[in-house]
This record gives sequence, structure tokens and C-alpha cells, in this order.
Amino acid sequence: MRSDRLGESLLPKRYALPIFASDPLSSVAYATQEILIVLTLAGTAFLYLAPWLAATVVVLLVTVVLSYRQVVRAYPSGGGDYEVAMKNHGPAAGLVVASALLVDYVLTVAVSVSAGTDNVISAFPSLNEHRVLIAVALVGLLAAANLRGLRESGRAFALPTYLFISGILVMLVTGFIRYFFTPDGLVAESSGYTVIPEPGYSDLAGLALVLFALRAFASGCTALTGVEAIANGVPAFRPPKSKNAATTLALMGGIAATMFAGVTALALLADVKYTEFTCDLVGFQGDCETDPQRTVIAQLAAAVFGGDGSLGFYVIQAATALILILAANTAFNGFPLLGSVLAQDRYMPRQLHTRGDKLAYSNGILLLAGFAALLIVAFDASVSRLIQLYIIGVFTSFTIGQWGMVRHWNREIGLTDDGPERSRMRRSQTINFVGGSLTSVVLVIIVVTKFTHGAWLVLVSMPLLIVLMKAISKHYSHVADQLAPDTDSRTLPSKVHAVVLVSKVHKPTLRALAFARATRPDQLTALTVNVDDEDTRGLQADWERYDIPVPLTVVESPYREITRPVLDYVKAIRRESPRELVVVFVPQYVVGHWWENVLHNQSALRLRARLQFQPGVMITTVPWQLESSVGRDDGDARGAGPAPGDLRRGFTEDDVESTPYG
Amino acid sequence: MRSDRLGESLLPKRYALPIFASDPLSSVAYATQEILIVLTLAGTAFLYLAPWLAATVVVLLVTVVLSYRQVVRAYPSGGGDYEVAMKNHGPAAGLVVASALLVDYVLTVAVSVSAGTDNVISAFPSLNEHRVLIAVALVGLLAAANLRGLRESGRAFALPTYLFISGILVMLVTGFIRYFFTPDGLVAESSGYTVIPEPGYSDLAGLALVLFALRAFASGCTALTGVEAIANGVPAFRPPKSKNAATTLALMGGIAATMFAGVTALALLADVKYTEFTCDLVGFQGDCETDPQRTVIAQLAAAVFGGDGSLGFYVIQAATALILILAANTAFNGFPLLGSVLAQDRYMPRQLHTRGDKLAYSNGILLLAGFAALLIVAFDASVSRLIQLYIIGVFTSFTIGQWGMVRHWNREIGLTDDGPERSRMRRSQTINFVGGSLTSVVLVIIVVTKFTHGAWLVLVSMPLLIVLMKAISKHYSHVADQLAPDTDSRTLPSKVHAVVLVSKVHKPTLRALAFARATRPDQLTALTVNVDDEDTRGLQADWERYDIPVPLTVVESPYREITRPVLDYVKAIRRESPRELVVVFVPQYVVGHWWENVLHNQSALRLRARLQFQPGVMITTVPWQLESSVGRDDGDARGAGPAPGDLRRGFTEDDVESTPYG
Repeated sequence: MRSDRLGESLLPKRYALPIFASDPLSSVAYATQEILIVLTLAGTAFLYLAPWLAATVVVLLVTVVLSYRQVVRAYPSGGGDYEVAMKNHGPAAGLVVASALLVDYVLTVAVSVSAGTDNVISAFPSLNEHRVLIAVALVGLLAAANLRGLRESGRAFALPTYLFISGILVMLVTGFIRYFFTPDGLVAESSGYTVIPEPGYSDLAGLALVLFALRAFASGCTALTGVEAIANGVPAFRPPKSKNAATTLALMGGIAATMFAGVTALALLADVKYTEFTCDLVGFQGDCETDPQRTVIAQLAAAVFGGDGSLGFYVIQAATALILILAANTAFNGFPLLGSVLAQDRYMPRQLHTRGDKLAYSNGILLLAGFAALLIVAFDASVSRLIQLYIIGVFTSFTIGQWGMVRHWNREIGLTDDGPERSRMRRSQTINFVGGSLTSVVLVIIVVTKFTHGAWLVLVSMPLLIVLMKAISKHYSHVADQLAPDTDSRTLPSKVHAVVLVSKVHKPTLRALAFARATRPDQLTALTVNVDDEDTRGLQADWERYDIPVPLTVVESPYREITRPVLDYVKAIRRESPRELVVVFVPQYVVGHWWENVLHNQSALRLRARLQFQPGVMITTVPWQLESSVGRDDGDARGAGPAPGDLRRGFTEDDVESTPYG
Repeated sequence: MRSDRLGESLLPKRYALPIFASDPLSSVAYATQEILIVLTLAGTAFLYLAPWLAATVVVLLVTVVLSYRQVVRAYPSGGGDYEVAMKNHGPAAGLVVASALLVDYVLTVAVSVSAGTDNVISAFPSLNEHRVLIAVALVGLLAAANLRGLRESGRAFALPTYLFISGILVMLVTGFIRYFFTPDGLVAESSGYTVIPEPGYSDLAGLALVLFALRAFASGCTALTGVEAIANGVPAFRPPKSKNAATTLALMGGIAATMFAGVTALALLADVKYTEFTCDLVGFQGDCETDPQRTVIAQLAAAVFGGDGSLGFYVIQAATALILILAANTAFNGFPLLGSVLAQDRYMPRQLHTRGDKLAYSNGILLLAGFAALLIVAFDASVSRLIQLYIIGVFTSFTIGQWGMVRHWNREIGLTDDGPERSRMRRSQTINFVGGSLTSVVLVIIVVTKFTHGAWLVLVSMPLLIVLMKAISKHYSHVADQLAPDTDSRTLPSKVHAVVLVSKVHKPTLRALAFARATRPDQLTALTVNVDDEDTRGLQADWERYDIPVPLTVVESPYREITRPVLDYVKAIRRESPRELVVVFVPQYVVGHWWENVLHNQSALRLRARLQFQPGVMITTVPWQLESSVGRDDGDARGAGPAPGDLRRGFTEDDVESTPYG
């Protein structure tokens, strides 16, 4: 990393906002709807709760944003809640956060894609029967794009995000004007429907009513998902990084709060009805068993801009679907980032940390897409069913992170004597304390109200992930213990015995012999295995004919196979002189096409696989490049391009292109 | 191979017969039935042709057996028709035979297993609805058993084969006694049915009648399948090999002819009706749309031994099903044998020839089972539909083989002046000439009468196989041309430059360094790639702390990956001094569990894959055995046991067990 160039290539705030805000902003597309879905379980009797619940969500959102502004200032390295938990509560808490975030990424993909599909279907209702297929195909497309090396780019992401923000704001303003200043007012297509309460929800009172309201509130808390993204992306900001990140966070919070409050208000004014079961809607036009309700956003857009056919309606639907897809895409970028951090701490395979191994990223992308697709299929791409699982992870990481910050400030305050500094810290601590308290309460509410609705799945998955990560960590430290250098490990072997494997007298064999001789071993054996008497006699004749200056040793093969006799020969050398180093030279064909491997090299591969278990034996591959392999060495530039999550780490395009190797 | 011991361990005739005869004898189970199926297309009007057709088949069988007795004498090495065709007609004919035999093996499995399933269902009719599933499961079982190393054994195979032979003979004798000497006679369950002719078959006359009769004859020729097996297994016989093989062949031919003629006669006497379409049978008990007809063997066994419930019935059905499964199993043993011969001639991947590579056998077994299962599913496990495809391959190889023998004798006769010897050869040539002529005619009959009934599939597959084998052969000779030694290939490199890849100071690195130093290269570089500044500084500090006597070279990695910087470094060495040999030492973890590979070694593998494309570069793997790998080197004895087809090649159990390595 050349630090002199870093400044120029990092993200200005106007590009950082679309990159990091597509996830939190996109939740505006479903948060209001999720509150309505719960409330309308009891008919329209409790819709009056909606403004209060929305207001509470906005207060919570503001609190969480303020809390995270403390995080980005205190931990500018981009570790986010995971780092905060690790440093202040220790590894156990860190792993809980990590598992919560991993689950969260899968659900971000599943929920965002499902919601995007909903909004596509709202524009083109005939697609409804293919709902699950469309959602799975979108996940597949995202996975494919990221496998191919789709690069996050501020410029490309800016258009849909700003289009969504401005579209929703224009819709809100136009909607309020219509409602207050036009004679017809604002009438959603579902305003005339009556809602039949579900059995058991008609006479809610006392504790049941409180739980019911809390459940609706918990659903509304989906508006907060994705807020933590900026805390993980501080390194991508231009300096002063923390300050710019904090400003962007505030900006994002303000926009999200405005949009969420506005959409909720407008939906209530326009009298939108949205129920979990379409057949609870009396007056619904169409077959309530099969036809879909249109999303709240779609109903508002239609009401505001004058019906389904209007340009405004299509623009809003397109922008909404697009930003939801972008939100899903952020998970594909956030996942490798988290994987890298976890790998650095040895909780994930280490190749997730080293950039070179694209294979590891590819596996991550496939896992993420696979689990998301599984959830989509299992839950019929239903946003309201998936959402039950979503926010547990989010609020787990919120809560642990905020309490970690409280502890962080405690420690920091103890380290300074500067009065104003201490009182500034006390203020920050208070913010985090309030944030932590609120999110703790919300987390309890979520677990209680959502557990039976699917959240148990998440509460089962997280411990499993934690166990897996602990096992990986244990494996690595066990290996590290084995590998620690001791006095013995630097002893030089006394002699080198080279063994060149020979099957025929041809160029690869001659090259292997020449190379082996060039290394001037103390002893050099050309070894062949007698699988077929006739072939062996031919080889011996050729050996004499070409006057090869190394004696040819023939070993017998009782089972007509190659590996074991060689292995036995090598073992015998080691038995006789244990301090002697054996170097086995294996000529190997290098082919240009995968199918050529079917025709060559099988024995060499097997032999190498077995020889490596012998201590004191090195295996030297002497490659022979067949014609078909020419020009293949740089054929694929795997590992040489940008990888998912690079932008978020502050590894940008300009940066790598400026290197002499680019 | 220790020839002094070979004699003791080879097969005596009484064990050779069951091994090699299960395939040809098992066709008795369906050959009669297949004649009836064609004849009853026209009602019962032409059943009078059956004895004549059966007699012709017997004559053909005797001729073919006599012809093959010449083959085993002239070509005792076990190459069979393929060797005869290669040596007398050249590679083109050899490839036709090879492709015919490959197709034949697949069909042997499909037909035998389907016929076996039929006989199981005849005993337990309720299994009929699972017909295809049972057949595919049997193929799967055979494949699994052979993958696990099921060994052909004369002793184990003897029981079912001799049980089948004696069972059928007892049934025939009892049946004839019943028919001729008891008042009730012999009445098959289907004797009372009337057969409705299929449309278009009711008024056969002239050419149409001839073609019809020929078609029935062609179906009866399935009785000849498998006769060639002994010609491929001569090496397995005790000396005098050829004479013993010829005797066994004659014995087998006599038994097969007796059984086929007997079953056909008894079926006609008992008035068995068997039709292609069950609903053509008036009087059929059960639902003709779904219920199966019982096989001819089952109907005879029931009639002879007194009904379904009798012990004799179950014994016959069990023996028939068993010998059919054994017949299918012979294909799993014959296939690697043919593969080995083809690989020796470079028409198949060479690892099929070298015994060691069980992987290659496994792939062969899976291919064979896969194609057989595909055919079974495609043709609903219907013997009469599969049989249309079966005999083309068999008679193709018969015909080419016999004409090859005619040419063989021509050449041999020209080489000798000995009068009696010449006239003996003339007699042999006449036998082969008659055999070749008859099988040629039959081949034409088969192609003409079966083409539209499915045989076209075989006539398409064979050329495809030939093209594939030619392509493989071309590839190998192209490679051989590249590899032929020339004057340049023995030049020694001037200097050796060793590069040890370093990531950390731990035991594997120290071992790699020690080993590299032990090889005393002209130049030694310890190379590390700077992926993470902090890690690299730590490495440099450790390097000094441990006082390692090799300077550490750090290369930068603009993309934070490992492969390319190393590659560039190595290329630079080669560019500067092209005659210098570069040895890259790669420390590698050896792990005991497959999943540990997920956590280690990815970079090393990728690096090796890329480095091998560089000329003048050797890659030396320095294995570090992690604790989990201990005791794994001999953990699996892959390649050390008998392989499918060994027995047929004369590689027997005793033989390998007697070696000092056993």
C-alpha cells in the first residue's frame, strides 16, 4: 500500500453515501408495511398505534445512529461491532457478534431480494406465479456478477440510490400536497377494503395487547437494518476518515428517518390496508388465494402519481427494486470483509484474509447465495415471513457493540486527566449507554415476539456458527503449537540422495536427470518400476543406447502398480541412513487443457500424495511443458483483479492500477 | 510375475467354466422367450417355425464355438477378436471390434440385470411396479461391489452356475417325463390363452414372412452372447492353456446348446404363450395393462415342479436370477481387461493399462454402470426392447474376428511346407470360413430386421466410440513426437538457484531452509511476499532473532496476493540467466483429514499450478507432517489389492499373495 496515493483514490462522501446507505435506506421499502401487517391481524382497530410505533422506531434509529458515530470515531479501522466486542468484552462476545453478522448477511440477501421481487411484481402482477423463481434467479445473478468480479463503484451506485431518495421524497411531497390541498385527497387502492381480524386477535387487551403492539414495533425495527455498514467501512472514506464517516452516518440517518416517517404517515393518510393473509381483505380485487397485494410503496406511488400506468409509478417501482438489489449486493461485499477480519483472528480459513485466493471468496459467495436461496425457497420469498428472522442478528450486534462502547469509554476515561476531554467522553458514553439500553430492550422484545414465528432458526444457527469458528480457531492454535521452532528444527541433513523416477527414455526423463545432476546430490539413483517385463527390457536397452551416465535401478512390482514399490524403496533409504535427505524427482507433463489430465499424470499425482507422508523426503516436480500448455501461464489473471469488499476496505481501483505491476 | 508359481494358481477347468460361462449360459434364460415374442406378434399361426429357428441357432452356436476353438489356439494371449482383427485386418478393424465390445459390455449389464429382475418378479409378482428401480438398484450394487474390490472367484461362482445348469437339466428331464409319461401331461399356465395378432402381422406371406422369420431368428441369436469370453481369458487357464480353454469352450457350447434346445422344446410342448404386449393374450389372468407375464423359465418351472409354491420353482427362479446377475458382473470384469488392452495400444487413457491406478478402474466401473442404468431407464428394463440393441455388437466382433482368422491361416499356410501341418491349417481355415460366412449373414439379418427397433442407437454409438479412440491415439502419438529425445535434451543447466518461500518463522520454514541448504545450491534466496506490512515486519524481526544464515528477500504485492509476485521474481531470474535452473522450495502441510485442506495449503497449491508453466523451474515440495497425518501413509491400501479382471488375465490371488511384498 502506497500511502502517498491513498488519499486521492478514496471515497468522497457523495459516493460513500450510495455505497453504504443502499442497505439501510432500502428498508424504507418494507418497514412501514411490516408494521401494518402485524397491526391488521386485529382488523383496523389498532391502526391508531401505527404513528406511535413509527415514532418510536425513528427515535431508536436516531439513537443508534448517534451511537455509531461514537463507534466510527473510536474504532476507525473498520472492524465495527466485532472489533468493539473483541476489544472490550473478549473473544466470546466477538464470536457472538460475528455469528450474528454472518446470519445477517444471508438474511439481507434473502429479504432484500424478496422485497425487490415484490416491487417488480407490483408493477407487473402477472409475474406473481414466478415469485420464488424470480427471487432465486436474482440471487443467482448477484452471485454470478460477484464471482465474475463485479466491482462496487460509487459512481454506478449513486444513480439508483439518489433516484430512490429523490423519488420517494418527491412522492411524499406530492402526496402530502394532494392530501391536504386537492379536493379528491389521496386514496390508496386498498382504502375501501375492510379487514377481517384473524381468530384470536379480535379482543386484544392487557398484556396481550402490549405484546401485540411490541410485535408490530419489532417488525418496524427492520428500518434500522444496515445502519452498521458505515462503521465497517471507515477505511474507505477520505481523511479525516472518522469525521467524514460520522457525517455520512448522520446524513444517512436523517434521510432514512425522514423517508420512513413520511412513508408511514402517507400510508396512514391514504388509508393503505396491507394484511398478512390477502383473504382477510374484504373487497380485494382478484383472487385472494393467488393474486398478490401490491406493496405499500406501489400503492402510494399509484395513488400519488395517478394510477398504475403513470410514469411516476414506474419510476418509483424501478428505483425501489433497484435499491433493494443493491442492498442485497452489499452483503456480497460485506461478507468477504467480515471473513477477512475473522480469518485474521483465525476464526475462519486463513485464505479469506490473503487476497490472492479468489477461490476462497468464490466459496464465500456461493455459500452466501446458497443459504439465501434456501431461505427464499423455504419461506416462499415472503418478506413478512423472512423478516421474522432478520432483525435478531442486527440487534444482537447493535447491543453487544453499544455495551462494548460503554466499557471502552470507562477505560478511556480512566486513562486521561484532561477535564474537558473526560466530560466529552462521559457524553459519548451516555449516548452509547442510552443506545445499548434501548437496543437491549428491543432485542428482548424481538426474541420474545418473534421466537415462534421463525426466529428460533436464527437462535439455533448462531451457536452452531460459534462452535464452528471456535473449532477452526482451536485447530489453528494447535497447529501453531506444533510449528513453533525448537532447537532441533535447524539441523542440516547429512547427505542428499536424489531419486529420479523413470518410465521411458524421453525428453521429460532426460530433463529430470539433467536437473537432478545439476543439483549435485551425494547419491543419484534412476529408478524404474517393472510393471511389464517387455517394457522394462526396452527401457534398459534404450538406457544403454543413449549411454546415460546414471545407473538404472529396477524395482519389481508384485501388484503391477507404481506407488508402493517407490515408497518402499524410499523408506528403505531412510531406514538405512535416517539423517540422509531423499529428494524424489518426478517428471510431470504440463498440459493446456483440463481433459489432457485424464490422459496423463495420474501416477505422478498419486505418488506425490503418498510420498508426502514420509518424513525427510522432498518431492521435486520437474515440469515438462507440452505444446498445448504454451501461453497458458498468464492465461487467467485469477487473483490479479479487485475482489468483493475491496472498496469498503479502502483498497480502490486507482490504487491498484497505479502500481508498476498493474 | 514369477513363472515358476504361475501354474499352481491358475484356474482348473471346473472353476474356469463357471467364471467364463455364466454369461453365455445365462442367455438360455431369455433366448427362447425372445423367439416366441417375435413369432406371437402374428398370433399362434407361425409358432411351427420355432423348432426350425431354434435348430438353426444351435447350428450357429456350434459353428461359432468351433471357430473360437481356433482362436484360442492361435491367439493364446487373451486379446480375443480385438487382437485377431488388429493383427490381420489392421487398426481400423480392431477399433470396430473394440467399439462393438464396449457397447456389448454395457448391454450385457442392461440385458442381464433386466432379465434377472424379470425372473425375480416372476417369483414375486407384487414387485412389478418397482421393475426399473430394482434393475437400477442391482446395477448400483454390482458397481459398488466392484468398486469395493469384489474379486471374481471360481469357487464362489461355481455354486450358482452349477446350480443353474443342474436345475435346468433336472427341469428338462422331469418336464419331458411329465409330458410323455403322465396322464395330465405338461401344461403351462399360459397354454389356454389365445393370442390376438398385432395389426399388420395377420397375413404374412412371401418376403414379409421371410423377414418375419429372420427377425425371430435374430432374436434367438442372443443365445450366442458371451461365447467370446473364453477367448479373452486364455491366460487364466492352467497349461496347456489353449487346449484347456478349447475344451472348456466345447463343454460350454455343448451345455448351452443342450439347455437352449431343451428349454425351447419344452416351452413348445407345454404350449407356453409369451407376447410382446400382454393385452394380446386373451385369457390372461390379471390386468394386462399393468400385470407382468411370467418368464418362460418361470412358467416351465411352475408347470414342471407343481405350481408357484413348489420348492423347485423357487430354486429355478433363484438360480436363474443369480446367474443373470453373475453374467452382468462379468461385464464389470471384462471391461477393465479390454480397457487395459486398448490402453496398451494407446486407444484409451494409459492408466487403464498400469494396474496401480484404481481410480481409472473406478471411472470405468462408474461409466459402465451409468450407461447401463441409462439404458435400463430409457427402455423400462424391458428385456425384449433392450435385446434389439444387444446382438449387433456381438456379431460384429464375431464376424470381423472370424474373417481375421481366415486371413491368419492364409498367412500361416504360406509360412510352412509341412504337408500334414498345412492340411490341419486348411481344416481350421475352413471352420473359420464357415463361421465367418454364417455370422456375416446373421449380422446382415440383424441389422436389417432390428435397425428400426432400436439397433440404430448402437450403429450411431460405435462410430462415436471409434472417433474418440482415434482422437486419444492421435493425442498420444503427438505427445510421443514431442518427447522423443534430441541432442539438446541432455544439456546440464549451468547453475542452480534455490528459492525458499517463507511466510513465517516456524518449523516447516526452517525445515525447508535446512533442506534447501543441504542441496548446496549456487545461490539461495529466502523469499517472502509482503501482503501485510505488519506481518512482514514481524517476520523480519523473527528472522533476525533466530539469526537465520540466509538473507530474507521481500517482494511487494500490489494486489495483496502471493502467486504473481513469486512468479515475477522467478521469471526475472530466468530472464537474467536463462541457463540457470531455478528450484522453488514450497513448504507444505500434510494433513490427515480432508477438511484440514480447507484450512491450509491453498496458496501453495495455486503457486505450484502456476509455476509449472515456467520452463527451467522445478518445484520442490517440502512436506511438513502435521500430527493428524501420522499413520496415514499406509492407511489405505489403494492399488495394492486385486483389481476387476485380474483373474481373467491370469493374475490370481495366490500369485500376488506369494510375493514378498504381499
